[in-house]
Amino acid sequence: MSLDGARAMFQQLALIGCGLMGGSFALALKRAGLVGRVVGYSRSPASSQRALELGVIDAQAVSAEQAVAGADIVLIAVPVAATESTLASIRGQVTSDMLVMDVGSTKGDVVQAAERALGERIGSFVPAHPITGKEVAGVEHADAELYQGRHVILTPLATTQAAQLQSAREAWAAVGGKLVHMAPDAHDTTFAAVSHLPHLLAFAMVQGIAAQPGGEKILALGGPGFRDFTRIAAADPTMWRDIFLANKTELLAQLRWHQQALQAMEQSILHDDGPTLERQIAQASSIRARWRMASITQDD
Amino acid sequence: MSLDGARAMFQQLALIGCGLMGGSFALALKRAGLVGRVVGYSRSPASSQRALELGVIDAQAVSAEQAVAGADIVLIAVPVAATESTLASIRGQVTSDMLVMDVGSTKGDVVQAAERALGERIGSFVPAHPITGKEVAGVEHADAELYQGRHVILTPLATTQAAQLQSAREAWAAVGGKLVHMAPDAHDTTFAAVSHLPHLLAFAMVQGIAAQPGGEKILALGGPGFRDFTRIAAADPTMWRDIFLANKTELLAQLRWHQQALQAMEQSILHDDGPTLERQIAQASSIRARWRMASITQDD
Repeated sequence: MSLDGARAMFQQLALIGCGLMGGSFALALKRAGLVGRVVGYSRSPASSQRALELGVIDAQAVSAEQAVAGADIVLIAVPVAATESTLASIRGQVTSDMLVMDVGSTKGDVVQAAERALGERIGSFVPAHPITGKEVAGVEHADAELYQGRHVILTPLATTQAAQLQSAREAWAAVGGKLVHMAPDAHDTTFAAVSHLPHLLAFAMVQGIAAQPGGEKILALGGPGFRDFTRIAAADPTMWRDIFLANKTELLAQLRWHQQALQAMEQSILHDDGPTLERQIAQASSIRARWRMASITQDD
Repeated sequence: MSLDGARAMFQQLALIGCGLMGGSFALALKRAGLVGRVVGYSRSPASSQRALELGVIDAQAVSAEQAVAGADIVLIAVPVAATESTLASIRGQVTSDMLVMDVGSTKGDVVQAAERALGERIGSFVPAHPITGKEVAGVEHADAELYQGRHVILTPLATTQAAQLQSAREAWAAVGGKLVHMAPDAHDTTFAAVSHLPHLLAFAMVQGIAAQPGGEKILALGGPGFRDFTRIAAADPTMWRDIFLANKTELLAQLRWHQQALQAMEQSILHDDGPTLERQIAQASSIRARWRMASITQDD
């Protein structure tokens, strides 16, 4: 896509939160030729300054409200817990033909927050969750390829305007995303299962070993299996604190499913019941061996 | 290392169990020029036939006993549960200057099995556990690089002969292993923590999702975090059944440590205690971010 002879799809992107996720979106949208100008705001001026230096944004705003004024597309890429206050702060600038999106890892709480914060402007909001990330944060790790081949979940509401939904789909498709529509609660159940619970277990795994006498020596002998199993345990503490609290009900429900399966295997081990244990493992093993990440990307 | 002008360190390797682990050892030892001839035996004749065709072994034996006759180095690379019967079957051929090793993932049970099976020949036995593997089994996946840069744990006994221990060290070093000596029980605690428990949790994770209504749809949306966390869930069912049962006490003790850490995080979530939850996650995150697999290899 090129700007030659054609107007960019969007005149101005307001990027609220100039970090890894937001910065990568801005870079990718620019590279696709879909946006004329990017105005960024970060709660920390150092972050938006860095984004400006790196060419991720073209101008710094002094507030979220100022960034949004005159924009036709807004991406809120702040911690989940800050979504509502951010939306409330820009409400006066949101117009009926503006597209507003987030990138939060939970959706039920975001939808409720948006309904409270945006009021009659809720039709401009398309809740989004791109399934990607890195173990490193910050705009210096922003990467125009971050969304390439990744699922992007949209959870539109009954009130979401069709034009905004269509623009959202086009924007995410242009940065390489594979679009999936889900209801907010189905989203939260799904990601409690495949993302939030694995993170919780990985954090607990590292803590459980470190708490033991000789824990450091034990950790030192972890091999490739341990490395991969615990990779996500290095993730950002405030982000994951917010996700766990925001999606508490679904997360704890998923923990119960997990513990039920675990207890059944524990019983087989306790009673030296080899045939049942083998059947349980074989079931998991054959499911996992057949599983493929839907989006084939270079790091598969 | 070369055979030119020098005798190979070993005249004949008896490989009992021509699979991934054993086949890789034979290939690596051959490539290092350390062995003259490899005689293989597998319970399944198709496996040793395939090993012969692939040049992993030079001759097929009709029994483990026949393979060991005349060998100066023996590698038992069979499922952990078959170790004792294998050792018992070769006892009559084990000499006082022969080196006999296993590659089992547990060591306490193997040491006990070896003491029962080998009797007065126990001094020839050096229990070994190379920390490596693949999610695929079989000699067709044998790889001379499998042990390159990997930890190899030796758990020698008071009765282990010094000459055999030295030969074992030289053989594993020649195939690229980084040697570590441990007591059998310290080994079993360590690997219950960094390997066996992660496998158990990964199996239970896949099972817990698959057991739910809509489980297949949920699994389909797993991303890179889920992929890496559950990679080990595709592992071999009979191998892991045997490991879990052989190391039952240590595995269940490690499960308790894990559940203690998990319950503490669960309480923070239940009570919306953000500060405590963040502290718990931050502790795990900083430990995991600093953690490095001791052996730096190409896939790090």
